[in-house]
Amino acid sequence: MNDKIIKNRIKTIRCDLKKKRINCLIVTKPANVTYTTGFSGDYSWVVITPRTVYLLTDSRYVEQAQNQCPHCRIIQRTRSLPETVSKLLQRLKSIQAVAVEKSTSLAVYEALKKNVNVRLKTVASVIESARCIKDTDEITAITKAAQIATKALKQTQRYIKPGIAENRLAGTLDFEIRKLGARTSFETIVAFGPNASRPHHQPGARKLKKNDTVLIDFGVRYKNYCCDLTRCFVVGRATAFYKKVYKAVQEAQAAAIKMVRPGAKISEVDAAARQVISKYDLPVYGHGTGHGLGLEVHEELVISRDRKGELQAGMVFTIEPGVYIPGKLGVRIEDDVLVTRTGHKVLTQSVKL
Amino acid sequence: MNDKIIKNRIKTIRCDLKKKRINCLIVTKPANVTYTTGFSGDYSWVVITPRTVYLLTDSRYVEQAQNQCPHCRIIQRTRSLPETVSKLLQRLKSIQAVAVEKSTSLAVYEALKKNVNVRLKTVASVIESARCIKDTDEITAITKAAQIATKALKQTQRYIKPGIAENRLAGTLDFEIRKLGARTSFETIVAFGPNASRPHHQPGARKLKKNDTVLIDFGVRYKNYCCDLTRCFVVGRATAFYKKVYKAVQEAQAAAIKMVRPGAKISEVDAAARQVISKYDLPVYGHGTGHGLGLEVHEELVISRDRKGELQAGMVFTIEPGVYIPGKLGVRIEDDVLVTRTGHKVLTQSVKL
Repeated sequence: MNDKIIKNRIKTIRCDLKKKRINCLIVTKPANVTYTTGFSGDYSWVVITPRTVYLLTDSRYVEQAQNQCPHCRIIQRTRSLPETVSKLLQRLKSIQAVAVEKSTSLAVYEALKKNVNVRLKTVASVIESARCIKDTDEITAITKAAQIATKALKQTQRYIKPGIAENRLAGTLDFEIRKLGARTSFETIVAFGPNASRPHHQPGARKLKKNDTVLIDFGVRYKNYCCDLTRCFVVGRATAFYKKVYKAVQEAQAAAIKMVRPGAKISEVDAAARQVISKYDLPVYGHGTGHGLGLEVHEELVISRDRKGELQAGMVFTIEPGVYIPGKLGVRIEDDVLVTRTGHKVLTQSVKL
Repeated sequence: MNDKIIKNRIKTIRCDLKKKRINCLIVTKPANVTYTTGFSGDYSWVVITPRTVYLLTDSRYVEQAQNQCPHCRIIQRTRSLPETVSKLLQRLKSIQAVAVEKSTSLAVYEALKKNVNVRLKTVASVIESARCIKDTDEITAITKAAQIATKALKQTQRYIKPGIAENRLAGTLDFEIRKLGARTSFETIVAFGPNASRPHHQPGARKLKKNDTVLIDFGVRYKNYCCDLTRCFVVGRATAFYKKVYKAVQEAQAAAIKMVRPGAKISEVDAAARQVISKYDLPVYGHGTGHGLGLEVHEELVISRDRKGELQAGMVFTIEPGVYIPGKLGVRIEDDVLVTRTGHKVLTQSVKL
């Protein structure tokens, strides 16, 4: 992790905190901990003060933290995280009020309230807002994750033959990702035939038949960053109806991607895809058209009809319209799109049907 | 999922809620949703009233919910979860106060407060307490997960040869688990040589050498239930020091397991393992001696020196002492133990060194 980039992130966050009149923030969410420190372990919190970034971790992670976070003050805790924060704040006499992220659970908030003897406030999405606009390190990592996904899928394609089970195919793809030095970013979805009508189908023992359809929704995590893509294949001959549906989804996706540029209304990107599906007289999907991604595979940004606001350069999200007909078929095409200064760039480049 | 078992769980939970003077509970935590409904999808909540169990889900999961939850009233939402809960509560006129679990985030709690127009209370660990004592379906699933783990590790052992990378070995084990129709319950840890001194090491490109040591910490998820085990191997000849450490950890684990029976003090189970490590004049591990597991790989129960209370029949947890010497070695042995009516049963039965 580039030290300068982490420093820039902290600068942006401190600036936002200052505007909100907060001089100390407790970060509890793992992805936010990673974002502010470069630390990729778990069960650790960050405390950001105007001068120092503290990483509170335990003996299992101290060695790792020392390697990953040269710019952090590392505190090895022996007691609970709320107790450790409290002890730290007692030492930092200049801190009169401290804020905790709203992603924190009620239980942890209560434990903090009990332990911390300075004023405790809550604050929404300080780190998430910063994370919404990706820096160059992040874009590079997501792009690399997408390249690994392309390669892994290509290696896996030769196994997509009648007789293979969903489960086995999912495992094969996961293994190809591992061989390329990466991880899956979520549990791989492989759905054959009508199983694809459940957008989040869990792969099972169902075997691929002749003239069958395949939906693969998967992601790669590389250097903590995620990509997320969906591809549909036909093994043998596709029905005329399947071809029509596929064409509609493809057009819907293209229409939405075409809209992506700084200043575009998020709800209009969503509408562009839905209109195409409607035009084909097909049922419009119930899920969003896309979601932000980065350190997490689902981040705050949602591309939906209710979402207010506009796209900004540096945002990265999926565009993934679909058509689902229970008992019959499911088609979804999903790519990851970066908003550039002048328009957009599709980061996922895998073979389509 | 056995319908009768789900009904029994709901009965126990309603009884506990009644004692706490709560007649309606909003369940937001995915594992608690699964526990109370059998539903294995995501982004869904449960509302438990004295008469009905409602599952609030979206179009992506409706088909799945209909299959998995015959005893639930399924509500397909088109708006946010807090808005959907609010609408439901408006219809249920007998509900004057509703409780939300403390595992819920501050942000969700605020959204509920804004939307729900009945009194909103918070409640800790109603479902988690029930989950702590496993029913027969749960014990069967964990046992089966443990059997798959044994088999997968056995299949993988032949790949543990000089030249293989940590990453590749982890991927191989994951694939074997998939081939057996199951999933990993967390990201497999494979650590060679001194890498094992970091208890949560992330497997990398490091290759296995001659006379090298291997630590594998992994788990299987089967029918939503997790097992979790750690094994250490030596490829070639072990040093006298490694042998001593291994023997100490093995003895420490046996000492703790021996203590496990209904009524045993949790802190004493922890102490039994630590005393052995001390006796060998080795550094005592900084993590807990064990943790509960079931639908989640880390559940509420922690086997540690600070933990008050006693073991009860039906609890399932890990016993996993270790010795870590940075730059030198790491040894941990982990098994899953069930508290039976008269003592205990070790559910994980893999080959040891």
